[in-house]
Amino acid sequence: MVTVALLPIGEELLSGAVTDTNSSWIAARLKSCGFQVRYKHITGDVAEDILRSLENLTRQADIVILTGGLGPTRDDVTKKVLLHWSESEWVRDEATYERIRKYMEARGRTVNELNATQADVPSLARVLPNYQGTAPGLWLEKDGKIVISLPGVPYEMKALMEQQVLPLLQKRFETPVVLEKILHTGGIPESELALQLKSFEEQLPEGVQIAYLPEPGLVKVKLTLSALRENQTVAEKVLHEQAEQASQIIGAEVYARDQETLEEVIFQMLRTGGKTVAFAESCTGGTISARLVQVPGISAVLKGSVVSYSNEIKISLLGVQFATLQALGAVSRETAIEMADGVRKLCDSDYAVSVTGIAGPDGGSASKPVGTVWIGVASKEKTEAFSFLFEQNRSRNIQRATLAALLLLRKKHLGILGDAAN
Amino acid sequence: MVTVALLPIGEELLSGAVTDTNSSWIAARLKSCGFQVRYKHITGDVAEDILRSLENLTRQADIVILTGGLGPTRDDVTKKVLLHWSESEWVRDEATYERIRKYMEARGRTVNELNATQADVPSLARVLPNYQGTAPGLWLEKDGKIVISLPGVPYEMKALMEQQVLPLLQKRFETPVVLEKILHTGGIPESELALQLKSFEEQLPEGVQIAYLPEPGLVKVKLTLSALRENQTVAEKVLHEQAEQASQIIGAEVYARDQETLEEVIFQMLRTGGKTVAFAESCTGGTISARLVQVPGISAVLKGSVVSYSNEIKISLLGVQFATLQALGAVSRETAIEMADGVRKLCDSDYAVSVTGIAGPDGGSASKPVGTVWIGVASKEKTEAFSFLFEQNRSRNIQRATLAALLLLRKKHLGILGDAAN
Repeated sequence: MVTVALLPIGEELLSGAVTDTNSSWIAARLKSCGFQVRYKHITGDVAEDILRSLENLTRQADIVILTGGLGPTRDDVTKKVLLHWSESEWVRDEATYERIRKYMEARGRTVNELNATQADVPSLARVLPNYQGTAPGLWLEKDGKIVISLPGVPYEMKALMEQQVLPLLQKRFETPVVLEKILHTGGIPESELALQLKSFEEQLPEGVQIAYLPEPGLVKVKLTLSALRENQTVAEKVLHEQAEQASQIIGAEVYARDQETLEEVIFQMLRTGGKTVAFAESCTGGTISARLVQVPGISAVLKGSVVSYSNEIKISLLGVQFATLQALGAVSRETAIEMADGVRKLCDSDYAVSVTGIAGPDGGSASKPVGTVWIGVASKEKTEAFSFLFEQNRSRNIQRATLAALLLLRKKHLGILGDAAN
Repeated sequence: MVTVALLPIGEELLSGAVTDTNSSWIAARLKSCGFQVRYKHITGDVAEDILRSLENLTRQADIVILTGGLGPTRDDVTKKVLLHWSESEWVRDEATYERIRKYMEARGRTVNELNATQADVPSLARVLPNYQGTAPGLWLEKDGKIVISLPGVPYEMKALMEQQVLPLLQKRFETPVVLEKILHTGGIPESELALQLKSFEEQLPEGVQIAYLPEPGLVKVKLTLSALRENQTVAEKVLHEQAEQASQIIGAEVYARDQETLEEVIFQMLRTGGKTVAFAESCTGGTISARLVQVPGISAVLKGSVVSYSNEIKISLLGVQFATLQALGAVSRETAIEMADGVRKLCDSDYAVSVTGIAGPDGGSASKPVGTVWIGVASKEKTEAFSFLFEQNRSRNIQRATLAALLLLRKKHLGILGDAAN
């Protein structure tokens, strides 16, 4: 297998000011094209550190991909290191200069001295045009090794990878295909899931690997299998059968497959069923609808959402009874039910989901500790509510309540809500 | 400086299925305690790869911190590698077993065979109790090097770092202090900011470093200075003065300092001023209020939010005129103004902010391309609207509109909204 090393550059990555999301993305894309990332070394903006890592990694891997350190400001040094490593000279790339000029012009700005130097490249480098920004990608070869330098801005890097780097690499190398199937499960702890799948794991055909990827409130089960291109069809069939088998063992808790997101599943499900939904969000504060609107076209199924942070709004907009709030509190089965009913009528939707809870860190009590959340699920026929006890952490409580609300909506639509009690 | 190497473990990190946010956080916390992360090697769940990295890194650094690979499932191998590396034997840690038992009991579950093995540790290891989960942290020493193994679940890892690892490391080593000041700026491109600060950069005292950290719609300017503990007070003064100087040059576009988030700034500003706010979100779909509710206590200033995804809701709930929608469309100055006015009255708040735009990928036209966003800002006295042209990417448009809306609210409150035109 052709091995790749990643060399993300930036003091901000090493110090933790910024999380390096680029290399995860690059590794995933490379993997699906049959290239394996075996080494990932992260360095600061220090020329000698970058050069040492570059020299080490070109010894260990066939391809080294650098990200970052190509911007116009003083702390960007990558290009100087590449000049030194390739033993070449500065040349101005006129096509890049022209693109920078036009880019600036379209934004009502002129090329300043810092922007202009972005068109200067080592003479040995092949320039990969950047149509999303000003710093071009670079492709260098020396002693049989390929070194690729990409900007650190994620969408610029992604466009360069998709449109130029991956096609060039696939043309150059004959790579095997890595197939994967992912089952997204909600509500089952990792260790229980592993026990459920114990016999399944023991019968896995040679080469099929299983991994459990836990996140708050959910676990992804990933099956992978690597195959030569000529065996791809057979391998796909094997992996598909294994995924089906695992899915049957786990049952209805598998809510999504592969790259699907829960919000996409909800969108497709409602659109196919011709149903609409509305939300009344108290402690989640808009997080549920914010997650759904990531899906293009969501307006076909999402009627609206009311963030009812205050009791006034719960009463005046959603029609929650003052008596309910006074007798049972805002975090109660009855309030959740009245919120769900209220927002469903207000938005004239088929379904409605309400969330009311104590996200923390304050507001908890002995009978309703931090992490207590009531979720109401309404349709024209029936409204029910379910209680959860999540965690001590505000942000995680919001995240878990959002997940739980969407999973309950899915079960409501599928007619299996009876299983959903906490 | 005491050097640290990080060794995050997990096939999912290398393949890109999951982004490694742990090491960024660890690096940032270590840095503020005077430890420098110089190496970060990421490996899959392969015992020999982990062992080779561990052996290499213990040669290069004083401390190696491993994260991940301690869970109960079959693909977790870290602990076996540590057993081999430390040339020791399995022992069952009774305190850990008891904690696992209680942890399970509190969740109405019993200890299964997979959970139980989490209490088995190499005999050389000092156990760092994990009060958030079941896999304990481990602290091993051999040949003068320290190796620390932590669970990969972020909140478990963080609690172990804060409560046990950092105090132990600080006790052991005399580390210098790394001071930093961050200015968060909105609305100025990185290269313009760098030109504004060019003379400032040239006069920086020795040792003070500057870095520009761009994100969509904003740039963070970071100043750092490393100092011995006995010089800390002097160094703090120097860095403070430099940050003040940079802040004066940049002006009102500095919206936050250091670890402050924009949502915290907005919360503090409104609470101090005794003001409340409401939102009418169309294309952002709840993202603005979702961001604000991350702040504990937000209910004191956030009255509510209406996600008015459909025109029906804009009319029935927010009181937008049907004639306005028909003549000028949902994405227009007038609709933004009527939405802001409507939600302000509905929620009886001091301020209101509305967002209506074309997030994409569809819905654009020649006169209103994808990325067109109108933001309305209302108070009792005056309502204005501002237009923006963001990008082609849905998710980034939502993110940038959210940022712009909160920055406009800030300027409204400060009485400098006149400068806010795009």
